[in-house]
Amino acid sequence: MNETPRPAYADDLRIGHVYRLGSHSVGEDDLVDFARQWDPQSFHVDAEAAAAGTFGGLIASGIHTLAIFQRLAVQGAFADWQVIAGRRLLDVEFRRPVRPGDVLTGSMTIDDIVVDERGRALVTAAAALVDQDDRTVLTTVIEVLVRAHP
Amino acid sequence: MNETPRPAYADDLRIGHVYRLGSHSVGEDDLVDFARQWDPQSFHVDAEAAAAGTFGGLIASGIHTLAIFQRLAVQGAFADWQVIAGRRLLDVEFRRPVRPGDVLTGSMTIDDIVVDERGRALVTAAAALVDQDDRTVLTTVIEVLVRAHP
Repeated sequence: MNETPRPAYADDLRIGHVYRLGSHSVGEDDLVDFARQWDPQSFHVDAEAAAAGTFGGLIASGIHTLAIFQRLAVQGAFADWQVIAGRRLLDVEFRRPVRPGDVLTGSMTIDDIVVDERGRALVTAAAALVDQDDRTVLTTVIEVLVRAHP
Repeated sequence: MNETPRPAYADDLRIGHVYRLGSHSVGEDDLVDFARQWDPQSFHVDAEAAAAGTFGGLIASGIHTLAIFQRLAVQGAFADWQVIAGRRLLDVEFRRPVRPGDVLTGSMTIDDIVVDERGRALVTAAAALVDQDDRTVLTTVIEVLVRAHP
């Protein structure tokens, strides 16, 4: 499947293009399950402690929020690109707490495409997740290596 | 549990302190399961396609690698701190592919502690994961909000 030509080589992408990446609903069980495995701090995994704490209830792990963005980005963009690999995330900001029941919607805007002499391109994109009230919960800038046309 | 005093308020942390965070083994099934859910690109989930591709085999999602770091950081440091929440990851670099069977070891060095007028501190730390051959696979700089002594 990796070798099947897809529509988008790096040369086919356009600077300034905005991808609407769809939405993901954050269930309480999913929030707690993710955090138990990867980020077991009380405000992510213990509803009672979280209710008495700073946020007044459970909040999602930032890594979980980032994983939700990645899932939406693969489904809405990368699956149609000739991706080699992700290389870097610049300035991942967890801007607001994400809570059980939140519905997060992703977007991504291509900022730059730089093709190298080895037929690869570094694609830079500004990424964001907003919640159901259009409040930004996550922003980052991603760098992805993408094949250029052979 | 959130309200139980722990040893380390922000004032108790020391700039320059290096945390040895322990190790995590990356199983092939775990690698594929994580990626199927959060980063379903062929080089993360399809062993046959990955073998024929750029890396000659499956590689872990960068988000999975970051989640492994977070788990080690919670177990080896944050669980003993008065953490309010993570705020930012600066410059997350996926420096080398992580493959099934790799054993990753984490470290974290406190770079800065800035207490604000609300009794909170922004703690900045340089973080890294190395593999079993001591090659760096992940680096980032994290910002975490931590309570100062009341």
